[in-house]
Amino acid sequence: MLGRVNHIAIAVPDLAAATASYRDTLGARVSQPQVLPEHGVTVVFVELPNTKVELLEPLGEYSPIAAFLEKNPSGGMHHICYEVSDIIAAREQLVKSGARMLGSGEPQTGAHGKPVLFLHPKDFFGTLIELEQI
Amino acid sequence: MLGRVNHIAIAVPDLAAATASYRDTLGARVSQPQVLPEHGVTVVFVELPNTKVELLEPLGEYSPIAAFLEKNPSGGMHHICYEVSDIIAAREQLVKSGARMLGSGEPQTGAHGKPVLFLHPKDFFGTLIELEQI
Repeated sequence: MLGRVNHIAIAVPDLAAATASYRDTLGARVSQPQVLPEHGVTVVFVELPNTKVELLEPLGEYSPIAAFLEKNPSGGMHHICYEVSDIIAAREQLVKSGARMLGSGEPQTGAHGKPVLFLHPKDFFGTLIELEQI
Repeated sequence: MLGRVNHIAIAVPDLAAATASYRDTLGARVSQPQVLPEHGVTVVFVELPNTKVELLEPLGEYSPIAAFLEKNPSGGMHHICYEVSDIIAAREQLVKSGARMLGSGEPQTGAHGKPVLFLHPKDFFGTLIELEQI
């Protein structure tokens, strides 16, 4: 089921400082910030040769990463996103195995405009997993 | 400086259960467990098309992931490893930027038999970064 690692998401309290750190200290190629009000984050993409890291800063009152940053004020690794070819088939297989989805269990349109699902971290050893249909 | 994402490391309290979950529930290709007493972990590689996830279980009394699992008993994302072509040049650039290494600051032989350095998570927004010379 799991395809490529699409991205590793890192929540940060200060996106400008984190971007500067990845660009200047770590010498990585970084994008311009993209403001995604409907997802409650501003994101900068760190482009690596085989995948990308997404630096996420909370945006607005109801950001989905606000609680994480309250627990981890310096920031930290938030989730890992795997590509799947058929998200409905993936969901069926997961539900059969007893794995739980976050939210309604219906795929939502993710930050890249593709259908996504988030799996409950309690079912995957503390790791929040996003599946994205590519 | 940063090259490919070599692996994402996930610490787990029960390697057999986590391996079964990635293999059977998530449908990924997983390796046999490899016991690495000199690194204080047992590791299973989850092979994705573009990178790998390493599931780590503590081994022995002084495992480097023991403290993490005390704080996060269910497990969680532990570090991200980037490839660099010249670890000494990378270190020089990092030290110039004020970034701190864990331990002595001298590259150690990592779990893949290559020179590695770990960067202080406080300097990188709560993310533990491993650099591996490839």
